[in-house]
Amino acid sequence: MTHLLALSGSLRAASSNTALLATLAELAPPGVTVTLHPIGDLPLYNDDLSGDALAPVERLKAAIAAADGLVIATPEYNYGVPGPLKNALDWASRPGYRSVFVGKPTAILGASAGGSGAVRAQGQLKQVMLGMLAQVFPWPEVAVTHAGGKISDGRVSDAATREHLARFVTAFSAWAPAVPPLAR
Amino acid sequence: MTHLLALSGSLRAASSNTALLATLAELAPPGVTVTLHPIGDLPLYNDDLSGDALAPVERLKAAIAAADGLVIATPEYNYGVPGPLKNALDWASRPGYRSVFVGKPTAILGASAGGSGAVRAQGQLKQVMLGMLAQVFPWPEVAVTHAGGKISDGRVSDAATREHLARFVTAFSAWAPAVPPLAR
Amino acid sequence: MTHLLALSGSLRAASSNTALLATLAELAPPGVTVTLHPIGDLPLYNDDLSGDALAPVERLKAAIAAADGLVIATPEYNYGVPGPLKNALDWASRPGYRSVFVGKPTAILGASAGGSGAVRAQGQLKQVMLGMLAQVFPWPEVAVTHAGGKISDGRVSDAATREHLARFVTAFSAWAPAVPPLAR
Amino acid sequence: MTHLLALSGSLRAASSNTALLATLAELAPPGVTVTLHPIGDLPLYNDDLSGDALAPVERLKAAIAAADGLVIATPEYNYGVPGPLKNALDWASRPGYRSVFVGKPTAILGASAGGSGAVRAQGQLKQVMLGMLAQVFPWPEVAVTHAGGKISDGRVSDAATREHLARFVTAFSAWAPAVPPLAR
Repeated sequence: MTHLLALSGSLRAASSNTALLATLAELAPPGVTVTLHPIGDLPLYNDDLSGDALAPVERLKAAIAAADGLVIATPEYNYGVPGPLKNALDWASRPGYRSVFVGKPTAILGASAGGSGAVRAQGQLKQVMLGMLAQVFPWPEVAVTHAGGKISDGRVSDAATREHLARFVTAFSAWAPAVPPLAR
Repeated sequence: MTHLLALSGSLRAASSNTALLATLAELAPPGVTVTLHPIGDLPLYNDDLSGDALAPVERLKAAIAAADGLVIATPEYNYGVPGPLKNALDWASRPGYRSVFVGKPTAILGASAGGSGAVRAQGQLKQVMLGMLAQVFPWPEVAVTHAGGKISDGRVSDAATREHLARFVTAFSAWAPAVPPLAR
Repeated sequence: MTHLLALSGSLRAASSNTALLATLAELAPPGVTVTLHPIGDLPLYNDDLSGDALAPVERLKAAIAAADGLVIATPEYNYGVPGPLKNALDWASRPGYRSVFVGKPTAILGASAGGSGAVRAQGQLKQVMLGMLAQVFPWPEVAVTHAGGKISDGRVSDAATREHLARFVTAFSAWAPAVPPLAR
Repeated sequence: MTHLLALSGSLRAASSNTALLATLAELAPPGVTVTLHPIGDLPLYNDDLSGDALAPVERLKAAIAAADGLVIATPEYNYGVPGPLKNALDWASRPGYRSVFVGKPTAILGASAGGSGAVRAQGQLKQVMLGMLAQVFPWPEVAVTHAGGKISDGRVSDAATREHLARFVTAFSAWAPAVPPLAR
């Protein structure tokens, strides 16, 4: 079994990016699970916090540690990674260079309402993930443009996009367990 | 009078970046104020929210709208902009391309515990600010390295760094009111 | 008179980006000139070079120094700035922090054959220009998608794109002479 | 045998980055070769060129295709990737998404005269390499600061830096042959 953990960069109930991840779960090949983990209950990152406030942080870190790979779907806010998504990654990234992200196979996707496909946010996010020493999946890329017309009822309905997502999740779920660990 | 609004990318009480901003307030030339606006009380960005939850967002937007310029001091988290800072900018950036950031003179600074001076986060943040159509101050740059030894009691104590910060706030407070508005 | 110097990130004779610049020259308001400066005759950047090899470098630097503003049109190569364009900028950027780019009003545009509008290259280029202490024009942005169908005979023929370019060159040529110099 | 191809982002004879690569060749474990390939003889990228002008491009592409992995050492020019290095990558990147870079294990290093370690250029270069579908080695990172004092006679002489480089080349030469190919 290959367990993929999914994070969505948007907290909206009707998010296109969350819909991408729900669709990946449907299209995953036999033996592959895709489980969405919420990030909306995290506090704003603040190193002064401790105790109960960090319970959702610990849950997020445990889920990442247990996963065979991460899939992160991100919208683009102001040409960059959404604040709430970066906030979740910042929490889970501690302690630096020894976090649950080290060596973790990670794939990035993105959807946008317009024609951009969130490509700037995806590029920035790949740099962040490499900075946390994750192993970043290079291809196939997923940049869904004009997402509004391709999604209904929280799932991707557009046939070509579904086909591409199936190819993506098949390729990533084969690649993730095969990448070599990082020597530490 | 020139009023500069200051945002700190760190929520820690003992933040070096917040100390940079407090020091700018001390060193500002006559007729220039530097006022820190908190961002730790904002909810995580979510377009579904409305009503009372958005009161701190409205306060932030009003403060930015009223300022003659912005100074943003940012640490670097995972080679990028801290989640809580991006979260604040994302909230204040709506409606897109017509927000309070349009044409706003904006200067970026950064401090780090190590040798980097937060330069990657600063570069990424400049790109984000340009994406929100702010006018980005190019020089002097402020990248304070090994900040721990240069700060005490919430103020920069290192003489050379203080001198550089004085030059910075003098130059930016002269530049900000002089930049031409953007034609809309 | 306002003199704008234009650099094209593509060396192809039939370049869409060069066509953008030629169209800007046509659409510039009275009293504004837009002059293309070639960058294809520069050697690859190498600090060991000297003498006659640097004649085209000196011409480029003199042209930038004499201009009231720069307009740079860039394609996107491999999600970044084209090598030949970065090569020209690297040459003209010496001596660092005291080059002809310091304080220079600079606008970036981009065209692409596909749907991206070269936005990643534009963002990266804005970061590079700020690093050379240029003053970067935030708006209007120009990201021409599917450029093949909007250009003929080396000029933009699409009416809506021409209208946008006219707005752009009018706004930038008003902004450039009005930006305050950087205090040195 | 594992054959690594090395590219230096600087054309200077006394380049620190070239010295890093020469030192990797010395420190490589048994069975691993590191071969520098020149990029200074390439023309500026121009899709209009053909014929003999492209001979050095074909040699570069053949060398990359034959290698088990790439190591690229880059200085930072104007907060970004040097023009001549990007020029070489742009040439070798054709045809897009089907080039010799697809799936190629690639490690990035950087050295700087000052305190930065070329980290912004390294980050930008990682994004470019991912855009060409290379597989980017996340760790150990190599960011050599104040390189002047750590190099003599074209080799790294500083003991701690040599030790780190030995660790790096050992880790990368084990990782590169083990990364799974990309499904095409």
